[in-house]
Amino acid sequence: MFNPTDHPHRRFNPLIGEWVLVSPHRAKRPWQGQQEAVDNTPKPAHDPHCYLCAGNTRVNGEVNPDYKGTFVFQNDFAALMADTPDAPASTDPLFQNTSARGVSRVICFSPDHSKSLPEMDLPGLEQVVDTWCAQAGELGKTYPWVQVFENKGQAMGCSNPHPHGQVWANSFIPNSPAKEDVQQRAYFKDNGRPMLLDYVEREAAAGERTVVSTEHWLAVVPYWASWPFETLLLPRFEVKRLEELTKEQRADLAVALKQLTIKYDNLFQTSFPYSMGWHGAPYDVDGNAGDTQPWQLHAHFYPPLLRSASVRKFMVGYEMLAEAQRDLTPEQAAAQLRALPDVHYLQRQ
Amino acid sequence: MFNPTDHPHRRFNPLIGEWVLVSPHRAKRPWQGQQEAVDNTPKPAHDPHCYLCAGNTRVNGEVNPDYKGTFVFQNDFAALMADTPDAPASTDPLFQNTSARGVSRVICFSPDHSKSLPEMDLPGLEQVVDTWCAQAGELGKTYPWVQVFENKGQAMGCSNPHPHGQVWANSFIPNSPAKEDVQQRAYFKDNGRPMLLDYVEREAAAGERTVVSTEHWLAVVPYWASWPFETLLLPRFEVKRLEELTKEQRADLAVALKQLTIKYDNLFQTSFPYSMGWHGAPYDVDGNAGDTQPWQLHAHFYPPLLRSASVRKFMVGYEMLAEAQRDLTPEQAAAQLRALPDVHYLQRQ
Ligand SMILES: O=P(O)(O)O[C@H]1O[C@H](CO)[C@@H](O)[C@H](O)[C@H]1O
Ligand SMILES: O=P(O)(O)O[C@H]1O[C@H](CO)[C@@H](O)[C@H](O)[C@H]1O
Repeated sequence: MFNPTDHPHRRFNPLIGEWVLVSPHRAKRPWQGQQEAVDNTPKPAHDPHCYLCAGNTRVNGEVNPDYKGTFVFQNDFAALMADTPDAPASTDPLFQNTSARGVSRVICFSPDHSKSLPEMDLPGLEQVVDTWCAQAGELGKTYPWVQVFENKGQAMGCSNPHPHGQVWANSFIPNSPAKEDVQQRAYFKDNGRPMLLDYVEREAAAGERTVVSTEHWLAVVPYWASWPFETLLLPRFEVKRLEELTKEQRADLAVALKQLTIKYDNLFQTSFPYSMGWHGAPYDVDGNAGDTQPWQLHAHFYPPLLRSASVRKFMVGYEMLAEAQRDLTPEQAAAQLRALPDVHYLQRQ
Repeated sequence: MFNPTDHPHRRFNPLIGEWVLVSPHRAKRPWQGQQEAVDNTPKPAHDPHCYLCAGNTRVNGEVNPDYKGTFVFQNDFAALMADTPDAPASTDPLFQNTSARGVSRVICFSPDHSKSLPEMDLPGLEQVVDTWCAQAGELGKTYPWVQVFENKGQAMGCSNPHPHGQVWANSFIPNSPAKEDVQQRAYFKDNGRPMLLDYVEREAAAGERTVVSTEHWLAVVPYWASWPFETLLLPRFEVKRLEELTKEQRADLAVALKQLTIKYDNLFQTSFPYSMGWHGAPYDVDGNAGDTQPWQLHAHFYPPLLRSASVRKFMVGYEMLAEAQRDLTPEQAAAQLRALPDVHYLQRQ
């Protein structure tokens, strides 16, 4: 008889309309491949060579202010510009392009070079949340899509250990949110409720994929997770965008973020790498975003590690050419994370 | 005025129906992040500790035969099994799964531990091509999808430097080919010809994205490439599946493969990592593959390197949450590859 804890199967990701191949127990195979560099040496609170620390000079010669909380500045090597001219309309089905405008900013989470999110205190985390909300609100006035995200750790392409994230605003709706838009819209049409509001209630009731649960937020390894310890951070209430969060919901989000990232660090007793970011309803900049009722705000966490601080999951040949594949079930991953202490391993005793 | 060589823009990938963000010149920003390990030390032709070398014992105790050309065996840690029972039908829109069956095999390219594809001789490469074709033909009798691929290099999750690839056969059509199926079908409906047959002719005429051109094959950095030096290897004639290739087309494919992988190795004077694999028409196993006329056989090469042997492109935060983004134009990448010598850097003088 079929048993999802033992038998390979596929699960459907209703948010993007794609499948993932789940191979339970495959994480047990021996690993002789790449080892990630692990650097667990403590960092100083201020590093004179860090271009993100307060008072230091950046590559382009600008001097950072003596900031105390968060600090936002224009990315010195932005992938987008605010003033790109329009491209001529292209109708060729094989060679289609369109111009893209946007801005790209860096968000330093705190002047303290040594502390990433799980090690920051709650007032500091609340300030990060407030900054995310303010950036989304401000850039959403001009751009239909505002992507708030953090790349943490060398394994995720982060080139500076100073705790920071980014925000890229776009004159277009990128692929991933475009897929989520289609899927949430279809679900709403069929069920009359936002997909992720139904989902968060079902997950809270089930419990088996829950990692962190606070008054207003729930973090789960989603049923359709593709990365080994991927999580989805969901509001337990209806909300479309970051800037709509109340003071109380923001404070509770700081608590949920701290708990989730502490679990992550505790899993392999290392500063846990990931890419995370927020998806909220697109902005109605040109009057064409449509009804955003089906949308629910949420954050994705995509961490690469699989077995230890130095062994990651590779989404390579089969995954790139065919389909994402995971080596343990989401329930196994959630149980591991849930069982970990709520105190950061560096702060114990 | 808009100019795609200087201005950020998006290009449309008609094969999967998604966009990619192109940011010309962004590869110029300084890099202080992760350095890939580069191992350019020569390898022995036979390594007594390699579980893929002829005559050696594998983890499960089996002894490899004293093989002379290619050697195919069942993957000792397969992600799929041939006898998984059927899962009960799931109709819940939020928690949908289905059982997945398949097989997974390893294909050693040659007994010589020291030589990857660009360093093998043409008869050796022809044997690799013949083995790919034979595997596809055999497994396509039982499975609707047969994914032939190679993960090369530690950066692509390859855990053994012995030249080898894999083949995973699936009882289902995975996400990527499912998207290509939809897109090729729609193009065929509108234009009456396979998309990639039109495309290969347009690219051959344009020339600016061409990397390698032989009598029967063309390798281009596709107009919509997302990885920096991604290529698409296309037949210049109509063909749906690997096993349909004639002897002459196979021999010429060996030439094209050798030229393309030599260019790759020469780019940063290193054994160039990539994941590559073949996409051909799905097999009509349950009588429901539909008309495969719109399909054209092709291979994708996805190499991670961006600036040097040790600096890769990271598809992380923005890319995972929003959209693939590249730091130089496909035309710039193709020009770099095209300009390289056709002789492998280790074999020059
Ligand atoms: O089976 P291998 O070669 O050890 O595994 C490698 O390729 C597989 C298929 O792309 C991936 O799932 C693994 O993450 C990767 O390490
Ligand atoms: O933080 P950086 O240096 O801007 O860059 C990093 O994040 C970007 C956005 O996800 C990626 O495009 C880069 O490949 C990555 O290295």
